[in-house]
Amino acid sequence: MNADYEGEMMATFVALEKKHDISGRVRQFIDASVRYHGFPAPGVILGAYMVDLALEKLGAEPGDRLFAVAETAKCVSDSIGVITGCTPGSSKFLLFNTGRIALAVGRDDGTGIARCVRAYVVCERTRSYPALRAWYFNEPDAKGNLPALLEDILVAGRGILGWERVDVPIPPKDDQWKPAICASCGEMVPDKMLVGDRCRACSAGSCYMEKK
Amino acid sequence: MNADYEGEMMATFVALEKKHDISGRVRQFIDASVRYHGFPAPGVILGAYMVDLALEKLGAEPGDRLFAVAETAKCVSDSIGVITGCTPGSSKFLLFNTGRIALAVGRDDGTGIARCVRAYVVCERTRSYPALRAWYFNEPDAKGNLPALLEDILVAGRGILGWERVDVPIPPKDDQWKPAICASCGEMVPDKMLVGDRCRACSAGSCYMEKK
Repeated sequence: MNADYEGEMMATFVALEKKHDISGRVRQFIDASVRYHGFPAPGVILGAYMVDLALEKLGAEPGDRLFAVAETAKCVSDSIGVITGCTPGSSKFLLFNTGRIALAVGRDDGTGIARCVRAYVVCERTRSYPALRAWYFNEPDAKGNLPALLEDILVAGRGILGWERVDVPIPPKDDQWKPAICASCGEMVPDKMLVGDRCRACSAGSCYMEKK
Repeated sequence: MNADYEGEMMATFVALEKKHDISGRVRQFIDASVRYHGFPAPGVILGAYMVDLALEKLGAEPGDRLFAVAETAKCVSDSIGVITGCTPGSSKFLLFNTGRIALAVGRDDGTGIARCVRAYVVCERTRSYPALRAWYFNEPDAKGNLPALLEDILVAGRGILGWERVDVPIPPKDDQWKPAICASCGEMVPDKMLVGDRCRACSAGSCYMEKK
C-alpha cells in the first residue's frame, strides 16, 4: 500500500461514515481506532464495534479500570488499546492468540479475576454481507473492492457480533527474574530469556540480518 | 496500583518534566506515550527517548513510511505505536522478544528490507543513575521510590542509550490461510491455528475459566 492509496481509502471511509450516519460513542471509537492504526483497516473498525458492544454489556466506560484480551494479533489489539487504555505494552492486556476474531473486556476489580464480556463474530450472520464475508473467510481478492468491504462493515456494525460472559484470571506481572548479561552483545536480558549464555538475537534466529 | 496512586504519579511526573525543562519533540513523544499507556511507566518514557534517538539518526519523521521492531513485550511497544504509527496490530510492527530493552525503527521503502536504527540501553551508562539502574536490573523494591526513578530517567534521557544500524527483512503478511470452523465453538479460525479439529481455546489451555 502506498500513501496515495491510504489517503484515498481514508476519504472513501469518511464519506461512508457520513452516508450511513455513523454517530455517537461508536463513531468516536471507530475514528480513534482508525487514527491510531493509520488506515481504515476492516479489523480495526470491527474491533471498535466489538469493544463498544463489550463495554455496553459490561456497563463500563473507557476510563474505568479494565482488563482486556485480544484473540488475534491483528488489528483488533489497536482498537482495544486506544479505546480502553488496555494497551499491549501494559499489564492490562493479554494476547491469547486463538485466531478467532474476538476480544474480551472486563473490570479489574482487584480480585485477580476479570469478569469480562467477550465479543465475537458469528459466522452465520456474515451471510447478508458478501464483501465482508469474503474478507472474513480470506477469499482471494477479498480486499480487491475495499470500499464495498468497508461499507459492509459499517452497515453490519454489531449485527454480525455475538457476546458472552467469560472470566479471565489476570496473569501475574512477570517480574520474577534476575538480570543476566548476554555473553555476545553485552546487553542485559532477564535470565530466563537467555539461550545458553546468549540472548535470543545472539544465539539463533535474529530478526536482524547478519552484517557482512 | 489504584487510580489515586496513578493520579499522584502523573502529577509528580508533570512537575518533574517542568523542573528539568523537558521540551521539544521528545517532550511531545514522551507525553503522547504516557497518555496512551495511561501512566508514566519508566519503560514508556525510555521508549519515547529510544524512538526519538532512532528517528533522529534515521533522519525520519513520525509521518514517514516506517517499520519497527520491539525487543520486549513490555511498555516500549506502546511508545513505538503511538509515535511512529507502527502499531502492534499492523503489519508495520514486529515483536522480536529478546528481553533486551531495545527497539529498531527504519524506513519501509518497498524493497522488503527495512534499514533501521536500533536503540538500546548501554548497561555501563546506567551507573550514574542509581534509581534507574535498580529498576533496570530489577532489584527488589526498585519501584519503591518511583519519583526518584522517573527523575533519573528524565535526567539521563538518551545519555544511557546506544544505537547502531541494522537491517530487518520485513515479514510477509500472514495471509496464506484457509478458513476452518472449530468443531466445538463453531467460530472461524485460520486452518493453521487449529489444534486437531478445534481452536486453541476449545482444545487445551484457554485463558478463560471453565464455566461451572
